[in-house]
Amino acid sequence: MRSIPIVQIGLGGVGRELVRQVLATREALAKHYRLSLVYLALADSGGVRATGAALTRDEIEAALAAKAEGRSIATIAGKSSGMPWSSLALREAAIFVDVSAAPGHEMMLAERVAAGSRVVLANKLPLSAGLAQFQALMFDAATRYEATVGAGLPIIATLQALLDSGDTVTRIEAAMSGTLGYLCSQLEAGESLSTALRAAHALGYTEPDPRDDLSGADVARKALILARTCGLPWSINDIPAEPWFPPAMAGLSRDEFLARAEELDASFAARVAEARAVGGALRYVATVTPQGASVGLRIVPAEHPLASLRGADNLFSFTTARYAERPLVVRGPGAGQALTAAGVLADIVATAREM
Amino acid sequence: MRSIPIVQIGLGGVGRELVRQVLATREALAKHYRLSLVYLALADSGGVRATGAALTRDEIEAALAAKAEGRSIATIAGKSSGMPWSSLALREAAIFVDVSAAPGHEMMLAERVAAGSRVVLANKLPLSAGLAQFQALMFDAATRYEATVGAGLPIIATLQALLDSGDTVTRIEAAMSGTLGYLCSQLEAGESLSTALRAAHALGYTEPDPRDDLSGADVARKALILARTCGLPWSINDIPAEPWFPPAMAGLSRDEFLARAEELDASFAARVAEARAVGGALRYVATVTPQGASVGLRIVPAEHPLASLRGADNLFSFTTARYAERPLVVRGPGAGQALTAAGVLADIVATAREM
Repeated sequence: MRSIPIVQIGLGGVGRELVRQVLATREALAKHYRLSLVYLALADSGGVRATGAALTRDEIEAALAAKAEGRSIATIAGKSSGMPWSSLALREAAIFVDVSAAPGHEMMLAERVAAGSRVVLANKLPLSAGLAQFQALMFDAATRYEATVGAGLPIIATLQALLDSGDTVTRIEAAMSGTLGYLCSQLEAGESLSTALRAAHALGYTEPDPRDDLSGADVARKALILARTCGLPWSINDIPAEPWFPPAMAGLSRDEFLARAEELDASFAARVAEARAVGGALRYVATVTPQGASVGLRIVPAEHPLASLRGADNLFSFTTARYAERPLVVRGPGAGQALTAAGVLADIVATAREM
Repeated sequence: MRSIPIVQIGLGGVGRELVRQVLATREALAKHYRLSLVYLALADSGGVRATGAALTRDEIEAALAAKAEGRSIATIAGKSSGMPWSSLALREAAIFVDVSAAPGHEMMLAERVAAGSRVVLANKLPLSAGLAQFQALMFDAATRYEATVGAGLPIIATLQALLDSGDTVTRIEAAMSGTLGYLCSQLEAGESLSTALRAAHALGYTEPDPRDDLSGADVARKALILARTCGLPWSINDIPAEPWFPPAMAGLSRDEFLARAEELDASFAARVAEARAVGGALRYVATVTPQGASVGLRIVPAEHPLASLRGADNLFSFTTARYAERPLVVRGPGAGQALTAAGVLADIVATAREM
C-alpha cells in the first residue's frame, strides 16, 4: 500500500465535496490501486489546518464543521497564498490540490513543483496568469487540471492523449459556459434576453453579478488553458472575448444593469432571427486554432455538433490531423460541485498512480 | 530519462502503424516526460524478432520491411502465444502490447502481469475470454485497453475516471460499429439493405465476410469489456446480440449470402418505416446496465444523442449517479489503423509514466 500525502487549498463548495469524495473512495482506491490518500493539510484563505502528520478523520471532520459554521479552520495562522509550506514538515512528494478560486497561487505552486511535488488544479487562475508560471507548473508534467475546463468531462485528458500519441490539433470549437448555453437555448425558444437573464439570475444559474458570465472572461480563460495545453505560447490578451453587453453598461451597479437589461433585447432578437433565417443556431463559441483564438456569439450551421446542443451542457469538438474529416466530440454537463470535485479526484488518482 | 522496454505482439496494419507512431513521438516523449520507449521484441504469428537487447532502429525497420514483403520477421522461431518469453532475457517490467487479433493470448499475458509486467491491448479477445483471465489481467490495475472499444476515442479512460472518483454507472448506451452505423444511415436515406450492404462490402467498409459485422458479435465483445470494466462479472453468453440475418443464412457461403441479401430487405424496410412513424431513428445499440446488457436494432427517440449520429461515427453515452439527468457523451470515428494505434500509444505513455 502506498500512502500519498495531499495538501488541499480551498474549502468552498467544491473543496468540501472533494474531501467527502476522498473519504468515500478510500476503500475502493486501496483495493484497486493499493493507494491510500491522506491529508497532510487543509487550507483556505483564513489559514491552514495541519499537525505535522496525516490529519485523522476526526480532524478533517472538525475542519469541515468549522467551515460550515463560519469559524476558522486554522490550527496554523496565515493565508494559503503566503504560507511557509516548506516549514510545515510537508513531505516533498505531496500532491498540492488547489480547488480555490483565489488569484496569486501560481508562484507558490510552481515552487512546490520545483521541489518535487505534484499539483492538481480546479482553480483556473494559476494556469491563465503568466506564461512562465504555466510552463513552470508543467515542468516534468507535474500538474493535472482536468476540472479547470468542463468540470468532470474528459477534456484535458483527451487533449493530452491526442498530443501524446503525436496527433496535431488543428481546431478546437467549444461551448463551455453552461450559463451562456442556457441563455442561447432560451433565446432560441423565443424568450427575450432580459427575461431569460433575470430568470437565470433568480434561479442561481448565473454568478451573483451576471456580467461575470456575460463578459465571456471565464470562457476566454478556459480557451487559454486549452491553447496553452496545445503548446501555443499565448496570454489572455491573445484571446479576445465578445461580451454580451456594451462597454457603457460595465460601470452600472448590478441592480441597475439587471433593471436595464431590456436595452439588450433588440440586438439579440435580431441575431436569433439571423440564425433562424440561415437554418443555423446561435451559440457562444470558443475557437482555438494554431493561427489564433476567438470567443463570441456565432451562428453555427445546423449540421455542426454545436447546433445539437441544448441547455447548459458543454460541448468540445476536436479537429486534428487524425480526426480531420469528422471531429472527436465530448459533451455533457460541465459545471457543478460534485462533477468538478470528481474531475479533481480522478486527477489525484492518476497522479498518485505515478508516484 | 527513463527507458521503458516494450514487447509488441502483432504487426498487422495497426501494429505497423503503432511502430511508426512510437518512432515518430520519441523526441516529444523524451522532452515532455523524460521517457524513452524502446522495443525489446516484435512478435507476430510467425515468430519473434529479438536480440536480448533493445532493437535498433535499423532492426525495427528491417522487421517492418520483412513483414511488408511477406517474409518472416523472426530472428527467433515460435508463435507469439506459445513463446517462452521468460527465456528471452526480457526485463520483468516490460510493457507487453498486444495489437494482434489472435485468440489464446490471455494466459501468457496474465503470466506476464503476475511477473510484474504491464499490458496494453488493442486485441479484444484476451478481455472477452474467461472472467478469471480478465481479472488476472486487471491485477494491480496492470492492463490498459483503450483501443479495444472505440479505437482512439477516450472511452475506457473516461469510464475508469468516473469509477475512480466513486461514481456509479447506471446505464451505458453505445453505437460502436462504424459498419453497422453506416448501414443504418443508408437505410434512413432510403436505400435497401442489400444495396447498402453490397456497396459497403465493395468499398471495403465491412469485414471480408460481412456477416462478421452483421452478427453483432464484435459489438457484444465490446459491450462485455465495458460491463467488466464496471465490475459486472459477466461472460459473453450474458450479452445476447441480435444478428442482422436469420440463422438459416449463417451456413451459406459468403457469395451465396451476398447474392441472397434481398431476402433481408423487406424486414429492414419495415423497421425503418416503423422508426419514421414514431419520429425516431433506427440504430444498432449496445445497452449495459447493472441489471443486464443487450445488443440489437433499436428505435431511439429523436431527442436521444444516438439519433443525431450519422454515418460511421461511434457514440457512447454514460448515465451515472452524478450524470443522472443528462449523460456524458463521447462521439467520433471509432475505427481505423491510425486512430487505433494512437489509442494504444496513449495507453503506453500513461502506463510508462507509472513505471
